[in-house]
Amino acid sequence: MTAGPATVSTGGQEDTRTRLLGTALRLFTEHGVEGTSLQMIADALGVTKAAVYYHFKTKNEIAEAVAEPGLKELNEVVEEATRQRRRGQQVDHLLTGFVDVVVHHRALIALFNRDHGVLRSVTKSWAGEENFGERILEILIGPDGDVNRAVAAHAAIAGIALTGGAPEFAELDDDTLREHLLDVGRKLLGRPRRVS
Amino acid sequence: MTAGPATVSTGGQEDTRTRLLGTALRLFTEHGVEGTSLQMIADALGVTKAAVYYHFKTKNEIAEAVAEPGLKELNEVVEEATRQRRRGQQVDHLLTGFVDVVVHHRALIALFNRDHGVLRSVTKSWAGEENFGERILEILIGPDGDVNRAVAAHAAIAGIALTGGAPEFAELDDDTLREHLLDVGRKLLGRPRRVS
Repeated sequence: MTAGPATVSTGGQEDTRTRLLGTALRLFTEHGVEGTSLQMIADALGVTKAAVYYHFKTKNEIAEAVAEPGLKELNEVVEEATRQRRRGQQVDHLLTGFVDVVVHHRALIALFNRDHGVLRSVTKSWAGEENFGERILEILIGPDGDVNRAVAAHAAIAGIALTGGAPEFAELDDDTLREHLLDVGRKLLGRPRRVS
Repeated sequence: MTAGPATVSTGGQEDTRTRLLGTALRLFTEHGVEGTSLQMIADALGVTKAAVYYHFKTKNEIAEAVAEPGLKELNEVVEEATRQRRRGQQVDHLLTGFVDVVVHHRALIALFNRDHGVLRSVTKSWAGEENFGERILEILIGPDGDVNRAVAAHAAIAGIALTGGAPEFAELDDDTLREHLLDVGRKLLGRPRRVS
């Protein structure tokens, strides 16, 4: 509890920022974004509130910065999927990529699952992308998809995200979780197991 | 905006309570429970805050009362499922009943989807039942279920609930939504279509 702004503004600013985001994610997950104050983040880091302000002016800025790496990866997955030639490849690419992002960013996903308001607010301000979820569903449903397909695609995305971030499966290693989440998507979207 | 406690305490108390719960659910869904005040509920009903207090002392009491009918139905479904003899019957009964509750209480489900904190807090205080979700998963997973089955069961419940309460499908009639949500559950849990 001794480091103040003076300490922060010398040396390791990138370190402080990274530590700050990790701590914020943990506190957001525990108490929700609403229930977490800048003071709580400062206390948990052992710095002053001024040191937190040095990096972020509002809690929402922190929430956006916490979410950015996961959203960025997901955006790349969506763009790569769009570039695939065949429908089946598009679906498989998106499904595999989506599961990878969920597994890789489990803590972030758990936060989104807990508080959809956060997800909405960060995706809305993030890169001006308002219809992020819609683009994912569009690819999974396809141009000829009927309502049955739309419900299945929606359930696949929701089921994978909520299950991947669920505390019940927090102990599973990444490969095991990935395999079973992929199975969920394949069953719902009628895709075969890939021979890889 | 003229009705006060005097009006409320004569005649139609049950009506006021029912209207209050309907209005509260609508406001909770629009603004979240956090973002809804007793004053907002009173204003929307055209009564005084004192009239709301006549029925409920806290917002949390309102949230519990809003959730009660859906949770009660779900509890009955779980108990009936437990009484089925064969595993397959248990799973089918629970799946069908769960989908029915989701379809029947779409607005409530949408609220739960939006704010998991509400779901946790109301199920926790409701009938002292702390492991409501766990009982559902136990039946779907079964005594011999492995981790693949556990992930599939979790994804089925999450996928059905989130998709059933999703604004994208709000226009679907009950029968259509029910049919497609059942398909989601059957695919994930490996159950055949029922010949009914």
